[in-house]
Amino acid sequence: MKVSLIMGSASDQHIGSACVEVLKEFGVNYEVRVISAHRALTVLQEYCEAQKDDTDVYIAMAGKAAHLAGVLAGMVTQPVIGVPIKSSTLDGLDALLSTVQMPSGVPVATVAIDGGTNAALLAIQMLAIGNSELKNKLIQYKETMKEKVCAMDASLEL
Amino acid sequence: MKVSLIMGSASDQHIGSACVEVLKEFGVNYEVRVISAHRALTVLQEYCEAQKDDTDVYIAMAGKAAHLAGVLAGMVTQPVIGVPIKSSTLDGLDALLSTVQMPSGVPVATVAIDGGTNAALLAIQMLAIGNSELKNKLIQYKETMKEKVCAMDASLEL
Amino acid sequence: MKVSLIMGSASDQHIGSACVEVLKEFGVNYEVRVISAHRALTVLQEYCEAQKDDTDVYIAMAGKAAHLAGVLAGMVTQPVIGVPIKSSTLDGLDALLSTVQMPSGVPVATVAIDGGTNAALLAIQMLAIGNSELKNKLIQYKETMKEKVCAMDASLEL
Amino acid sequence: MKVSLIMGSASDQHIGSACVEVLKEFGVNYEVRVISAHRALTVLQEYCEAQKDDTDVYIAMAGKAAHLAGVLAGMVTQPVIGVPIKSSTLDGLDALLSTVQMPSGVPVATVAIDGGTNAALLAIQMLAIGNSELKNKLIQYKETMKEKVCAMDASLEL
Amino acid sequence: MKVSLIMGSASDQHIGSACVEVLKEFGVNYEVRVISAHRALTVLQEYCEAQKDDTDVYIAMAGKAAHLAGVLAGMVTQPVIGVPIKSSTLDGLDALLSTVQMPSGVPVATVAIDGGTNAALLAIQMLAIGNSELKNKLIQYKETMKEKVCAMDASLEL
Amino acid sequence: MKVSLIMGSASDQHIGSACVEVLKEFGVNYEVRVISAHRALTVLQEYCEAQKDDTDVYIAMAGKAAHLAGVLAGMVTQPVIGVPIKSSTLDGLDALLSTVQMPSGVPVATVAIDGGTNAALLAIQMLAIGNSELKNKLIQYKETMKEKVCAMDASLEL
Amino acid sequence: MKVSLIMGSASDQHIGSACVEVLKEFGVNYEVRVISAHRALTVLQEYCEAQKDDTDVYIAMAGKAAHLAGVLAGMVTQPVIGVPIKSSTLDGLDALLSTVQMPSGVPVATVAIDGGTNAALLAIQMLAIGNSELKNKLIQYKETMKEKVCAMDASLEL
Amino acid sequence: MKVSLIMGSASDQHIGSACVEVLKEFGVNYEVRVISAHRALTVLQEYCEAQKDDTDVYIAMAGKAAHLAGVLAGMVTQPVIGVPIKSSTLDGLDALLSTVQMPSGVPVATVAIDGGTNAALLAIQMLAIGNSELKNKLIQYKETMKEKVCAMDASLEL
Repeated sequence: MKVSLIMGSASDQHIGSACVEVLKEFGVNYEVRVISAHRALTVLQEYCEAQKDDTDVYIAMAGKAAHLAGVLAGMVTQPVIGVPIKSSTLDGLDALLSTVQMPSGVPVATVAIDGGTNAALLAIQMLAIGNSELKNKLIQYKETMKEKVCAMDASLEL
Repeated sequence: MKVSLIMGSASDQHIGSACVEVLKEFGVNYEVRVISAHRALTVLQEYCEAQKDDTDVYIAMAGKAAHLAGVLAGMVTQPVIGVPIKSSTLDGLDALLSTVQMPSGVPVATVAIDGGTNAALLAIQMLAIGNSELKNKLIQYKETMKEKVCAMDASLEL
Repeated sequence: MKVSLIMGSASDQHIGSACVEVLKEFGVNYEVRVISAHRALTVLQEYCEAQKDDTDVYIAMAGKAAHLAGVLAGMVTQPVIGVPIKSSTLDGLDALLSTVQMPSGVPVATVAIDGGTNAALLAIQMLAIGNSELKNKLIQYKETMKEKVCAMDASLEL
Repeated sequence: MKVSLIMGSASDQHIGSACVEVLKEFGVNYEVRVISAHRALTVLQEYCEAQKDDTDVYIAMAGKAAHLAGVLAGMVTQPVIGVPIKSSTLDGLDALLSTVQMPSGVPVATVAIDGGTNAALLAIQMLAIGNSELKNKLIQYKETMKEKVCAMDASLEL
Repeated sequence: MKVSLIMGSASDQHIGSACVEVLKEFGVNYEVRVISAHRALTVLQEYCEAQKDDTDVYIAMAGKAAHLAGVLAGMVTQPVIGVPIKSSTLDGLDALLSTVQMPSGVPVATVAIDGGTNAALLAIQMLAIGNSELKNKLIQYKETMKEKVCAMDASLEL
Repeated sequence: MKVSLIMGSASDQHIGSACVEVLKEFGVNYEVRVISAHRALTVLQEYCEAQKDDTDVYIAMAGKAAHLAGVLAGMVTQPVIGVPIKSSTLDGLDALLSTVQMPSGVPVATVAIDGGTNAALLAIQMLAIGNSELKNKLIQYKETMKEKVCAMDASLEL
Repeated sequence: MKVSLIMGSASDQHIGSACVEVLKEFGVNYEVRVISAHRALTVLQEYCEAQKDDTDVYIAMAGKAAHLAGVLAGMVTQPVIGVPIKSSTLDGLDALLSTVQMPSGVPVATVAIDGGTNAALLAIQMLAIGNSELKNKLIQYKETMKEKVCAMDASLEL
Repeated sequence: MKVSLIMGSASDQHIGSACVEVLKEFGVNYEVRVISAHRALTVLQEYCEAQKDDTDVYIAMAGKAAHLAGVLAGMVTQPVIGVPIKSSTLDGLDALLSTVQMPSGVPVATVAIDGGTNAALLAIQMLAIGNSELKNKLIQYKETMKEKVCAMDASLEL
């Protein structure tokens, strides 16, 4: 049971960290790589080939004309989660559309712009199919979120 | 192993059909329901409660301020795939943003606007984690897509 | 006569404050809660059930894929005012479309992005239907606004 | 108890009809007028002055740079519901932003683009504050909507 | 020969200053007022009535759902120049569309977002029709702009 | 007293006709030309040079990356009215932004997308500065518009 | 001297034809292929490897999350011209941003949405560097365009 | 072999520097000029005429309604690379659409918003057609980029 997180550039690292934190919290095995689809395509291919029987879910993070998730989705049969990264122009809209508007036959499971935490949770939800331990952790996570909202509610001073 | 496809309205049926066709082709067990998050929230809750141990992946289709996938994702721990549906105004942008821009903690795996086929394939990819039979079918599906493109290429007259 | 203000998250508090300030100024009874539609749906349902005969108008504030106002509107028959909140990407457009583009049958009275003040005023306008005291206060409020603009005009140095 | 529906142009009539149909169904008294804020501002002012004690809620429909609802909101203290109308360019986005992005102090309760039905329902929700007969009709309306969705669900063949 | 500059709010003053500076430079008579179309409509009407034979060109500056220029254009027969002002959300797109997308019969001469300088120049171009002194100043202004660009070109160190 | 209408391509002719119709109705002298800024720049320059003392107002119509109005504005000191034309993609947004977002020093008086009628009216408003006959016709035109709206209002059956 | 035109799908053929027509007219050697970056990546790689010393310029056409041009640009050192294709949603904006917003180091020479003709002309301009015969044909082409505009101008009846 | 870089204004200098740096690195002859299409059109024409046999590729940088690249493309037969520059409003979208959406017959090779580096690389790719020395440098550049990504990958600590 392993998640592979691939970032298009090391500058996306803060979003990557948010993602890794959740994977750690759930005790899920993961690997993080920086591999650009445009600058190191063959490295990406070799990695995917090597991970054929190891990686269960991919997470890809990229900005601007964000092709990483889509190219990966063309290479592998595992689910690919795409995280569009906001860059200095267009407020993330370019990365969002480049990631989500995939042609028929090659889906990318797209989460919100800069959504590192949600990418991890989505990967864990996938891994939890038929895994009751992980499923229970997700139920617990949801419960904790609810409690936090209730605590915020209780401490509100308006 | 079961996929539950929920449509926000029966008018989204043509996109639902494209989705069902792929699920059938892969021999995946599925159920299709029309349940609106706004008009029949308690029906949705009862359904989710009943499906707690039956459904492995949800697919939700909705247009305009498309809340169905997100509300569902708040209720369940299974992965929820969201299909934004284009309606008569704004060319699908409203449904896309309403589906994909989920807050931290509650991911929706969003595919392209009107992406019924890709929603099914993504669900199958999730189910194929640790299921070699389904994984082999996905490999075969990819191979067939490639052959079709090559056939188009061979028959091109330009 | 009571207004219930529900915020999707405590981080929307500055917009909430602007809203509360106006409600206070008009002497309207209000309650403020933090309840997330995605993280605490059943809390929201219990609250609405409890407020069935108490709350006259709801105000809901949320960002990103802002489902709170729409989900609330599905639950209650009271008017629901939606305030889209700008977050770190897309400049509030996602929250605006997620709030305003509601399907037929389930309206949300949407005000401007980050429009806390206007949400309060709109709620008061609703309460003022058949309430001449409140109506007179609104007439006075409009008069004061006009005077402020005239004062700005008079003191302008250009 | 009266709703005044003002259309910026007679070409918005199909959206106006959808609105009127709902008002009739709920037995709410209404009046429909065609008054342009740009072409007949003084007519609008005279109408508002005359309706000061008669009209409880205004509904304004306009397309393009849709100023009607906002100008109306500047004139009256009753709630103003704005319906942005899609015209031949920009897919309704211009009318939406012109209607909803009102400055502080002058709210417009904006519904979806071309949302005639929802404008009527929102007006009725406002009138139902403190009117248990109308409130019961709204509860019944919600129930009927739910039944229709369930009927669609039951008759679905996919 | 007079230009009337109306600002929707005193907070648009920095754009107003840029405009006034150019009018001064060309020796054009002007008046600056702060009058909100939503908060002080009758003041606007009185002003326009009073300026019927005095003002030759109006310049209107407003942000968000910027109705000022359009409402003014409905009142007067003089040309109205609209300056959309960028506010805290949507990057000025709301003000631009609210200003430029006027319905047939009521034009607003719209310049760029925050385009105070260009509004003044456009007003001067209008006044220069049949005024050779002003026309010569415009020719000189164009010449000076060209020289400035050439000077920038000459001093460039790249 | 002359208006020169320049179209970037003969395919914009339907918008050009709407413009010409109004100019005729007001008895304003005009000339229509098809001159592309990209394909026939020197023709444009020669025309502008020749019209230096003849044309009082320019109207320029172009679609897509609509440079015609802006380039013209760089060449002449007369006011230039820009009409963005909707083409087969992007719903006119490209032409609108290319026309209106002019840099400081070179204004284009932009009207609505496909706004041929308003371009003519704006040109007439400019020519009416200091021309009481034309000003009276504009007052009459406004009166007629108002009557038409009132007639639509009177004949409404809803 | 050879141009390779790659289409992501045979459904883009009408844009491909417009492109080929121009290449033929200029007597430029070309090859047309249908190769999807997502469905047949290795075919694309083999083709590029084989064309290393044969193809001088690539043209890539794709719609939606249009990755073809960018992926190609990552593989080759020849210039890659990208043509974003409009599909059934979002009016071509997704393809435009996915094609043009390439990260630093990997340029794509992007032309207008559906711009098949311009892609061919741009390729020819590149080939004309240091090729006086082709350069003369381009000069002639420009001259012919100018004549066509002048002919349209001459035959205009407005 | 020469690249001419033209900036619409000296304020675009930081993007210009990024471009020049790459041209220097590849040992390509270049010239940088500040020439505004709107403020100094005849200077632009004279420059192009003078460069008829000297410049091989043009690079044009401009913001807002960015006409520089398109006007240049109308004047010359050499390839024109357009760099849309982000300014204070609309996040670069205006410059992008004004640059890329060129009408048929007059292509501009558009790169990403603020894409100075990529403009230089694209120019070099064009010059490398039939120039094996430059082509080898491009191959080396690609190799170095790949190594940098791999180094980032190796040093990643997540």
